[in-house]
Amino acid sequence: MKTTVTQLFNIEYPIVSGGMVWCSGWRLAAAVSAAGGLGLIGAGSMHPETLAEHIAKAKAALAGSGKPFGVNVPLFYPELARVIEILIAERVPIVFTSGGNPALYTERLKAAGITVAHVVASARFARKAEAAGVDAVVAEGFEAGGHNGRDEITTMALIPQVREATSLPLLAAGGIATGRGMLAAMALGADGVQVGTRFALSEESSAHEAFKKLCTELGEGDTMLCLKKLGPVRLVKNAFYERVAAAEAAGASADELRELLGAKRSKRGIFEGDLTEGELEIGQIASLVRRVEPAEEIVRSMMDEFRSAVNDMRTWEL
Amino acid sequence: MKTTVTQLFNIEYPIVSGGMVWCSGWRLAAAVSAAGGLGLIGAGSMHPETLAEHIAKAKAALAGSGKPFGVNVPLFYPELARVIEILIAERVPIVFTSGGNPALYTERLKAAGITVAHVVASARFARKAEAAGVDAVVAEGFEAGGHNGRDEITTMALIPQVREATSLPLLAAGGIATGRGMLAAMALGADGVQVGTRFALSEESSAHEAFKKLCTELGEGDTMLCLKKLGPVRLVKNAFYERVAAAEAAGASADELRELLGAKRSKRGIFEGDLTEGELEIGQIASLVRRVEPAEEIVRSMMDEFRSAVNDMRTWEL
Repeated sequence: MKTTVTQLFNIEYPIVSGGMVWCSGWRLAAAVSAAGGLGLIGAGSMHPETLAEHIAKAKAALAGSGKPFGVNVPLFYPELARVIEILIAERVPIVFTSGGNPALYTERLKAAGITVAHVVASARFARKAEAAGVDAVVAEGFEAGGHNGRDEITTMALIPQVREATSLPLLAAGGIATGRGMLAAMALGADGVQVGTRFALSEESSAHEAFKKLCTELGEGDTMLCLKKLGPVRLVKNAFYERVAAAEAAGASADELRELLGAKRSKRGIFEGDLTEGELEIGQIASLVRRVEPAEEIVRSMMDEFRSAVNDMRTWEL
Repeated sequence: MKTTVTQLFNIEYPIVSGGMVWCSGWRLAAAVSAAGGLGLIGAGSMHPETLAEHIAKAKAALAGSGKPFGVNVPLFYPELARVIEILIAERVPIVFTSGGNPALYTERLKAAGITVAHVVASARFARKAEAAGVDAVVAEGFEAGGHNGRDEITTMALIPQVREATSLPLLAAGGIATGRGMLAAMALGADGVQVGTRFALSEESSAHEAFKKLCTELGEGDTMLCLKKLGPVRLVKNAFYERVAAAEAAGASADELRELLGAKRSKRGIFEGDLTEGELEIGQIASLVRRVEPAEEIVRSMMDEFRSAVNDMRTWEL
């Protein structure tokens, strides 16, 4: 299957696994890439040295396959300069940047021969990313897990507007976990998809098994965007969330929320499996994900469902 | 084009115009139905006698065409029993109920030969609607204008889950204003769409021209879901909204918000055109609607774009 996304990244299927904190290590990235998608390592939850190790392991796992992998880097990362050095030194073929100004490092990464995509939550930032010289844009809607945009634009409303704003290869993200979701995103104008939640709950995800189990048992409405005064983040409604929600309803300030949040809560929840006090980042579409599966099966079943849905449409009498 | 929705309502195209307060009078409803969709009169902003007049005028406008129309009734309407009597006495062919318990009147309406659809914002309520005996379900996502569900489930996440929950004819709503949006909704499992925003901004909409103009000039992120302690509603970010947002950020109680809201603000904004102090209900997808058009042109251009997008898919190599 050919789209501008498969051509840009030199992959078989236009499916990218998001670079999710505490989920996206080399195992998940390599498994998705080996299956014909593009796997990303999530640098956001790694020390620079840990990242270098994961890059080395992903390379080893994919050696000789000719298949690429990528790294997602949040541009608010404290040791950002060091991470950029590692990406360049290690000749990582593809970098997704997110959560910051793409003008910062795009030129330097591209000069090193790296293909760069940037994650945005609005058409306005898609234009800025294009102006910064990125090769592709990921447009991520309100339904996505974890950190999110302030404008609360959903994938359904976002993709057509980003499509209008830029002719760059466009990946849709947020609420996409199935082949039908992928087809919907492509109907809206995307050239491929970035899937977070379903891969976060895959066998190869580094997340704690208790986190995966909880998330595959969520009902609709069991996640909520919160902490908007700090920076919006979508969390499972656990005991910690309920305290945040109560504080927010009572008008808590950003400082009070920062104190309530404290440090290392996402690690505690996602990686260490503290389901009551951890910050459990997952997308709204988790309630459609019912099983922990191998990443390869996710790619295959998405493509099977996608093809079958397209074939259904071909029989429609218009 | 045949889907379970066109068959159920006996219409040409699976496009329903929402029954929107201060927008959906007989003119808009009749224009959409005449164009081959299904037009709804919005009873929510009408006195029972006004509703009866609008029904009579819609009937007259469509007389001899064999084309149906419908009425949307919010089940929290103060004079609900009287409205139900009118719908039955006037032999309104199709009724959409919303915002309440579908078990209340579905049986009575159906016994009178009326086709009944119910609007839900979750799969759980879709199951309840099916149990109440409705003929179709409208699943409306977070991006929709006006009153909204508490779970904040977006159309992208909602439709596949409602599709799993019921085999009834399913209309997707929220964020759909184009043929590509319609195709996306149908890829997710819908049999048709209910379009609010684009028809609210049509020539035949009863909304004030100043409201229509403002809404066709909105940027992405210029609407926001607010008043969650009263009942979530999506509004344009005008001066009134900013006061609501400030009060909410400071922890205002439901009572304080009720006082801030006062009465008749949606009429003031949408119908009377007070753009600063009115409650301006419109969907997130307004930023994709750039012109006030005749309803017929909206139906035609949605169908043209839909067909062209499906035909594009026929050329994909999978």
